[in-house]
Amino acid sequence: MFKGKKRIVQLAIVGLVLWAMLAFRGRVLAQGDPVTTELTDGIITQIDTIWLFIGAALVFFMQAGFAMVESGFSRAKNAANLMLKNVIDFSAGSLLYFAIGFGLMYGESAGGILGTSNFFLRDLAISPDNGYGWVDFLYQVMFAGAAATIVSGAVAERLKFNVYLIYTVIITGLVYPISGHWHWGGGWIAQLGFVDFAGSTVVHAVGGFSALAAAWLLGPRLGKFNQDGSSNVIPGHSITLAAIGVFILWLGWYGFNSGSTLSGMNPGIAYIAVTTTLAASSGLLSALIIHWLRRGRPSTEMALNGALAGLVAITAGTANVEPFAAILIGLIAGPVLVYGLELIEKILRVDDPVGAIAVHGLNGLWGTVAVGLFASPTVGRMTDMGPVAGLFYGGGLSQVWIQLVGTVVISAWAFTTMGGLFYLMKRTIGIRVSVREELEGLDLSEHGTVSYPEFGPKAAEPGVRTLMPSAGD
Amino acid sequence: MFKGKKRIVQLAIVGLVLWAMLAFRGRVLAQGDPVTTELTDGIITQIDTIWLFIGAALVFFMQAGFAMVESGFSRAKNAANLMLKNVIDFSAGSLLYFAIGFGLMYGESAGGILGTSNFFLRDLAISPDNGYGWVDFLYQVMFAGAAATIVSGAVAERLKFNVYLIYTVIITGLVYPISGHWHWGGGWIAQLGFVDFAGSTVVHAVGGFSALAAAWLLGPRLGKFNQDGSSNVIPGHSITLAAIGVFILWLGWYGFNSGSTLSGMNPGIAYIAVTTTLAASSGLLSALIIHWLRRGRPSTEMALNGALAGLVAITAGTANVEPFAAILIGLIAGPVLVYGLELIEKILRVDDPVGAIAVHGLNGLWGTVAVGLFASPTVGRMTDMGPVAGLFYGGGLSQVWIQLVGTVVISAWAFTTMGGLFYLMKRTIGIRVSVREELEGLDLSEHGTVSYPEFGPKAAEPGVRTLMPSAGD
Amino acid sequence: MFKGKKRIVQLAIVGLVLWAMLAFRGRVLAQGDPVTTELTDGIITQIDTIWLFIGAALVFFMQAGFAMVESGFSRAKNAANLMLKNVIDFSAGSLLYFAIGFGLMYGESAGGILGTSNFFLRDLAISPDNGYGWVDFLYQVMFAGAAATIVSGAVAERLKFNVYLIYTVIITGLVYPISGHWHWGGGWIAQLGFVDFAGSTVVHAVGGFSALAAAWLLGPRLGKFNQDGSSNVIPGHSITLAAIGVFILWLGWYGFNSGSTLSGMNPGIAYIAVTTTLAASSGLLSALIIHWLRRGRPSTEMALNGALAGLVAITAGTANVEPFAAILIGLIAGPVLVYGLELIEKILRVDDPVGAIAVHGLNGLWGTVAVGLFASPTVGRMTDMGPVAGLFYGGGLSQVWIQLVGTVVISAWAFTTMGGLFYLMKRTIGIRVSVREELEGLDLSEHGTVSYPEFGPKAAEPGVRTLMPSAGD
Repeated sequence: MFKGKKRIVQLAIVGLVLWAMLAFRGRVLAQGDPVTTELTDGIITQIDTIWLFIGAALVFFMQAGFAMVESGFSRAKNAANLMLKNVIDFSAGSLLYFAIGFGLMYGESAGGILGTSNFFLRDLAISPDNGYGWVDFLYQVMFAGAAATIVSGAVAERLKFNVYLIYTVIITGLVYPISGHWHWGGGWIAQLGFVDFAGSTVVHAVGGFSALAAAWLLGPRLGKFNQDGSSNVIPGHSITLAAIGVFILWLGWYGFNSGSTLSGMNPGIAYIAVTTTLAASSGLLSALIIHWLRRGRPSTEMALNGALAGLVAITAGTANVEPFAAILIGLIAGPVLVYGLELIEKILRVDDPVGAIAVHGLNGLWGTVAVGLFASPTVGRMTDMGPVAGLFYGGGLSQVWIQLVGTVVISAWAFTTMGGLFYLMKRTIGIRVSVREELEGLDLSEHGTVSYPEFGPKAAEPGVRTLMPSAGD
Repeated sequence: MFKGKKRIVQLAIVGLVLWAMLAFRGRVLAQGDPVTTELTDGIITQIDTIWLFIGAALVFFMQAGFAMVESGFSRAKNAANLMLKNVIDFSAGSLLYFAIGFGLMYGESAGGILGTSNFFLRDLAISPDNGYGWVDFLYQVMFAGAAATIVSGAVAERLKFNVYLIYTVIITGLVYPISGHWHWGGGWIAQLGFVDFAGSTVVHAVGGFSALAAAWLLGPRLGKFNQDGSSNVIPGHSITLAAIGVFILWLGWYGFNSGSTLSGMNPGIAYIAVTTTLAASSGLLSALIIHWLRRGRPSTEMALNGALAGLVAITAGTANVEPFAAILIGLIAGPVLVYGLELIEKILRVDDPVGAIAVHGLNGLWGTVAVGLFASPTVGRMTDMGPVAGLFYGGGLSQVWIQLVGTVVISAWAFTTMGGLFYLMKRTIGIRVSVREELEGLDLSEHGTVSYPEFGPKAAEPGVRTLMPSAGD
Repeated sequence: MFKGKKRIVQLAIVGLVLWAMLAFRGRVLAQGDPVTTELTDGIITQIDTIWLFIGAALVFFMQAGFAMVESGFSRAKNAANLMLKNVIDFSAGSLLYFAIGFGLMYGESAGGILGTSNFFLRDLAISPDNGYGWVDFLYQVMFAGAAATIVSGAVAERLKFNVYLIYTVIITGLVYPISGHWHWGGGWIAQLGFVDFAGSTVVHAVGGFSALAAAWLLGPRLGKFNQDGSSNVIPGHSITLAAIGVFILWLGWYGFNSGSTLSGMNPGIAYIAVTTTLAASSGLLSALIIHWLRRGRPSTEMALNGALAGLVAITAGTANVEPFAAILIGLIAGPVLVYGLELIEKILRVDDPVGAIAVHGLNGLWGTVAVGLFASPTVGRMTDMGPVAGLFYGGGLSQVWIQLVGTVVISAWAFTTMGGLFYLMKRTIGIRVSVREELEGLDLSEHGTVSYPEFGPKAAEPGVRTLMPSAGD
């Protein structure tokens, strides 16, 4: 790993040259030797394809991260239920997004409202040679899965499984793609000049406010709130699982944010990973320290959620803000999390077992608005949106307003549509398991299994019946 | 992530141009400016090398996935034994494959039967500059490890550790490389026109039918079958571990399938990842729903194995079938799994704790035959085998027969050679631990340790002796 | 995956051509068509950037590996504490390394002793276009995190949390960057001709000898040593967690070693991954078998640490030694681990719960010295240091001495500075929790939480108070 400083400088120059060249790529390509430049163009396409493949793999892995965090922060008697919800949302979701979602989100726009083509990837047809077209779908489908899976933590330990299955079909097939079209599909919110580079709003706030609607309608878990209005802590069953989940999510976030360049030829891919790292670190420290000061002890759980809060918050502006602004965004994500958790539990009296609403919803809002404050035109020129100036970079209030409008509209869209869906299901098929089932745990009541039959107090009880699937059952 | 549709179209055109150019690459390179084209060729080699490095890393990680699935689906008292089997098969296996296996599989062919050169990578000699040569070995050694590790789940909880060590040496040093040579080494089965792009047969059926032979000769675990012929469920100790294992395997499969292009310049790498995703998702849903309809409850365990079944089944045709066919292959993988588990347990009366035989063996067969049914010539032209037409694409029955012959021959090879080996060991050194050891658990009896000394009923027993290695022991 | 031998040969030739061309790259580029070569140069920069991004992501993931190994090998009552230490060292560490560490390590050198520029990445300024500059920082910050996190295992179960926070700031901000500058920053040790390609000494021995100093000053855990001088085994709480940790570390090591080429255009990236694999495998087998012969049983724990020992040992010479030498280095790493553990516990009477000192410290030394023995000039020419000849390759004893001086000096630097720091803290704020807190477990006493409230003997105790953070708490 030995190296001198000279190389950095040389490469910086090369980078600047590349930058200029890419900006005028069409013209340059026309000038070069035609045979060679066509080959070079082919190489560039493959670099883009491999880059998004890497991004897609990392974002896919976030599914495991979500599953572990949610499982770790809830009780052992519901672990198998959570695991199933976390695989089913991706499985059903990916098929739905293939069939409908991708077309609604990125198809030919009908008035900036929704896409109307490319259903079942028809436009890609059977041309595997169109490598970039396919990897673009691959990358997008992983994002749809991420948006869907955020909700499962907030509704953990009491939502019926079949209700979750319906929910996941609707969010990945309709709700996420439509609001996604408004921004990333080039729809009406994009046309306002809204900036959400990798999805603080488009993915996380959509998940977070869907979670708020669902958890609100579902009501708190038994034993969460006391008659005098105070609330109880219901500890999760494994901090270790939660921790590995956070490490996996953090890892996946590099694909989530840097991959959102959509091109491996974008020189900003590492810059984005650096702002991501700084915000995650400062979010963790900020949440840890604020909670420490208030409660007198450093909390592992709060630190873990603090890292996620910082990651959600930096996601919108990761390609538009300077390193110091990234640190500041993370530092503010901490109190947004800590006080947000309190707001949701104490004021709204909503029970969110894993803190998904504060992490993804509130910090999604904060991160999106932060772009309006901290966007640096020097930095943002590497994005497709081009340079944007936030309030503190001479841009005045206009970008703040655009950011506010965009994030509030999209969050409200998620909240009302998913709220409507859950309300409808509540009035018809019912969304909540029975009291007996909730006490018993969803693993046993919904799935006839026990996640850890040998561990815990249950393990010693002679009457525990485990009903794992088997030919012999 | 903002982008317009136009870019996709532009890139599609670039992709097609690239396609044409690569097909005539030699000619094109000869025409370009010689200095530049040599540099360009160097770039392409590095893209291929980095691509296979990514693939190798992902496939390596599957070792962790297998370990977690197997551990999660078996009992806590055998977890340390399973962990050791899962690291030893890769460790011993990689050294054997380096010494002998790679040469047998990809060395100069002796009549299409086995390779006869490049033992100890002698042909690569000490030329680290031959980046592609080394990354090719790196990628292949990960596949050998995957083939070996499939068996450990089926023989869990009762196989002697030293027997497993001998087994792993033989499969990675001889059995897998020889049948591998028949197809991927360009041997006699390849010359029939057999298509197994990423290894439904070459890797998974070899592992699955080795597992069948071993589990059959080993006999069921104590308490699996009752005297009246019925069987009992023996629940695993952690559904959460099984779930993270499946997520990791799914992730790794992107490297397993897409990496099998062996070139990062292949425009089909993302297409392959899409068919892989669709089949995994539909396999999961199909297994879940069929079992749900039969048993009345959605089963997490069956869903997890359903995803693996879909992944195994798509592996052979991932670069040859259309998206709809991929979904169909996954949908059929579900019943193959569900009824396969029943067949193995009820009819064959073989005890396979994790379902490896149905997942890898039966779905390996199914996926390989499916190529004969669904191979689309339009799609398959991106593979080195060139376009292949399945039954439903105007190819008649001939490809079906070739696929059947190839998969049956290779599966039978694995079944008989490994069956012979296990039979030989059974008659000599014995392959099964004693009843006392099995009841006690292999962790304590074979390794003198306890995997979770603080958890479970055991934890409370005062007499438990933990014997972790330590200088003080 | 079908392919013939011919392609390998063709690509070997291409590789050699590339090799020659890169060596004369400046000249070649000057000769080509200027427009095309500038574009080609831009492509190369992006390949380098993507390559280091991959490396950085893999090395980041090692944080999760360390966390799981350390947690698995220590007791459940301290798991949340270990998780927090493992996230805080990266979080605080990354901010410190951004602010000070990177400048001290790679800034303009003051007499080969320390770097003096680029604090807060000032030289990169706000130029996201300088992709390579940013990815270089990204990659380096992950290494700083790895060096810091090694210590947490050795001081597990008894170190105060605030002491760990101070330690992590000092090691990532000062100690690691300064000795890092001596070699990788081009400082005085580099000028001696010292070779530590990926950090057996620069990262692992620094972590390992910091761990020795800390664990020594901290004293053994209660119950570790008996009054008669004998020691007891204190089993960890989950071998499964330790195993997944080792798999993750092994995976991450591919990024750690191969990424250290710092360029994706280096044809040696796969060669490095192969020597890494061989040494990990042989280290595992060697430690397993030696311990087996001595204790009569194969130990999962020893095998897991054996893989890590092999990985640490190969890290220095991974790009300089032949495959057979890599195997030999791993084979010797086994006894270095097994007898090293005994030395540390029996002779030094230091309590290292996870074996970090033997794994990272002693094998860091061994691996660094091994370069002096086995460095092959043929292999090493692909590194920036150029060809180096070890004792067995005609280089005489000189390289051995250089290696010894380098590793001893850097290890002593880490030992004395961190020893001084911990001594200072011991004399002032105290570094060890109280006896009551240690017995109770750090989770409860320092963080007011319980990692697994539903499992284990504690789970049954009615008096257990769990104090998870929550708005309601």
